[in-house]
Amino acid sequence: MAAEKLFTDPYVFWLNGTGTQADIVLSSRIRLARNFNDIPFPNRANLPQLAKVKELVRGALPDLEAATGLRYQYIGIDELTKLEKNVLIEKHLISRNHINSPEERSVLISEDSRVSIMVNEEDHLRLQCMVSGLDLKTPLALAMSLDDAIESSLSIAFDEKMGYLTSCPTNLGTGLRASVMLHLPGLVFTQQIGKIINISPQLGLAVRGLYGEGTEFTGNIFQISNQLTLGFTEEGMIDNLTGTVHEIITHEKAARESLLKSSPDKVVDSVWRAFGILRYARSVTEKEVLILLSKMRLGVDLGIITEVNPQVFNELLVASQTNYLRNLQENENMSQSEIDKKRAEIIRTAILKFAVGG
Amino acid sequence: MAAEKLFTDPYVFWLNGTGTQADIVLSSRIRLARNFNDIPFPNRANLPQLAKVKELVRGALPDLEAATGLRYQYIGIDELTKLEKNVLIEKHLISRNHINSPEERSVLISEDSRVSIMVNEEDHLRLQCMVSGLDLKTPLALAMSLDDAIESSLSIAFDEKMGYLTSCPTNLGTGLRASVMLHLPGLVFTQQIGKIINISPQLGLAVRGLYGEGTEFTGNIFQISNQLTLGFTEEGMIDNLTGTVHEIITHEKAARESLLKSSPDKVVDSVWRAFGILRYARSVTEKEVLILLSKMRLGVDLGIITEVNPQVFNELLVASQTNYLRNLQENENMSQSEIDKKRAEIIRTAILKFAVGG
Repeated sequence: MAAEKLFTDPYVFWLNGTGTQADIVLSSRIRLARNFNDIPFPNRANLPQLAKVKELVRGALPDLEAATGLRYQYIGIDELTKLEKNVLIEKHLISRNHINSPEERSVLISEDSRVSIMVNEEDHLRLQCMVSGLDLKTPLALAMSLDDAIESSLSIAFDEKMGYLTSCPTNLGTGLRASVMLHLPGLVFTQQIGKIINISPQLGLAVRGLYGEGTEFTGNIFQISNQLTLGFTEEGMIDNLTGTVHEIITHEKAARESLLKSSPDKVVDSVWRAFGILRYARSVTEKEVLILLSKMRLGVDLGIITEVNPQVFNELLVASQTNYLRNLQENENMSQSEIDKKRAEIIRTAILKFAVGG
Repeated sequence: MAAEKLFTDPYVFWLNGTGTQADIVLSSRIRLARNFNDIPFPNRANLPQLAKVKELVRGALPDLEAATGLRYQYIGIDELTKLEKNVLIEKHLISRNHINSPEERSVLISEDSRVSIMVNEEDHLRLQCMVSGLDLKTPLALAMSLDDAIESSLSIAFDEKMGYLTSCPTNLGTGLRASVMLHLPGLVFTQQIGKIINISPQLGLAVRGLYGEGTEFTGNIFQISNQLTLGFTEEGMIDNLTGTVHEIITHEKAARESLLKSSPDKVVDSVWRAFGILRYARSVTEKEVLILLSKMRLGVDLGIITEVNPQVFNELLVASQTNYLRNLQENENMSQSEIDKKRAEIIRTAILKFAVGG
């Protein structure tokens, strides 16, 4: 039952529209990379060794539940249908890499999906904790408590000088990646986003699209994360990223103000048209939906559109995605036009569901 | 008061969405050209002669009212502001030609605007009678009764062989032009309209756009009228035109059916998007509005859109026009962006006004 909901309910706890700076920061995420001693990294391990990793993690499950007060589903990747795998990717709970060789791969997902632990992805363990809004401290604390629970009974590869050992050297040290998902239409429409993307490597940060590395910046959604994992404390890293995000927020707010000041009619018309199309269209493509949703959300954030709750944006970020729609219909072979029709229907339903004042 | 309403009320009797075949035929119009004996045609008359024509018509006003049971406003063209002149053109009550040399030009307009009599346009009298839907007999009877009332007391130029004498030889004979305004999105979208335009001269018919000769076919609106005025009876002419219009209607209906059959998703999505934009846009250009209105109307006619009464289309054909909007604001110098904003506002109001079931 719970598993079923995971694939059919578009709601994800960490994308519920609440939290600090939630009009710009969609979510904050902490990821820790960990590996067991005396077992080769997944890309060099054989199947029995990978199976051993799974067994160790499964054994630690009660400890993880006790440490965090959360309940977890243990899911074997090879037990999932293609559609289900893709839904978990669309929900940011597993990576595309994780489904490529599914044997002896698994994932633990907390009931509210704020925690996912990928087993035998690039590292033996990828602990991921997410919350809505700008708040890296809470997911860091949660990730640390998971890590503590694991390390209390299992032997994790750690070097006094190098810190945590990881499959890829870019993760050495803390093994920590902190990232924040931002909605930045103001900076895109005022063409200032390029500056931020260009300057980020100098700040030790990476900027990616909605689905991580190599994905387009559709829907004006950006993920910003730290690149360096060595030579800083965990707290230092998240303070650094949080500081930068606050600066970006300031710029984004100024950009929105200046947009409204320089071409108010154009902005107002544009966000209302997006709302009108979302509310009534009968066919919407995957690419178009994010553009329209971004405009609608900007309209809501600017106080122009008051007919709908901002959460409709967050929910539709998941609910309008192709594999989620396919899975909802239990039909892997839906044609593109069927998917686009279903997407339009889901959007219309969501707009009514999140209507303000009925 | 009544005159005021003429310029600010978008409602025109002959475009009220009622009548036979009203889903395709917007209106039917009869025009008679008449000239007085012993006075040169307007383009060759001097100002005292033009003034004499006006005086004769003004003298006949009680007879016209008695014959038709309608009340008329007598309006001197040179008394109108530029905006008011343009509103009358947008309402199809006077021609552009009529305002070019306004001295001693006038127009009589019945209170419900189903009759307009231009004085000293190309001919001394241009009697125009219009009704909603497909019905050329009613406006012909009305025009004939106006003509009878005039001829009972005034001497009209008539030749036994040539019939009524007119300024332009193309109007000789009956001096009658019958025309029908059609909404033909089906024939446009299935690219069959070209055939009809090409074949019409062979049938003695002319095809024009919304505002007559030389205007574009924006909004998929076409005016079809007889070209020949000599050698036929009035009844023969309107029977001929009515027969052709019935054939066009059959083709239009078949085209709509085939559109819905061949690409239902595209049609349904397209009409709903048009509705969504019209309902929420904050700025709409004059060109775009007719395209959107045509799609919305098609959606209503096909039973896809049930939220709004089809009359919204007819009302907005007048109410969304630039000069009407300018006049409504009593501002000749409205900027393009102000006009486009006002247009969007008028559209939103009209959609709510004509909403079905509130």
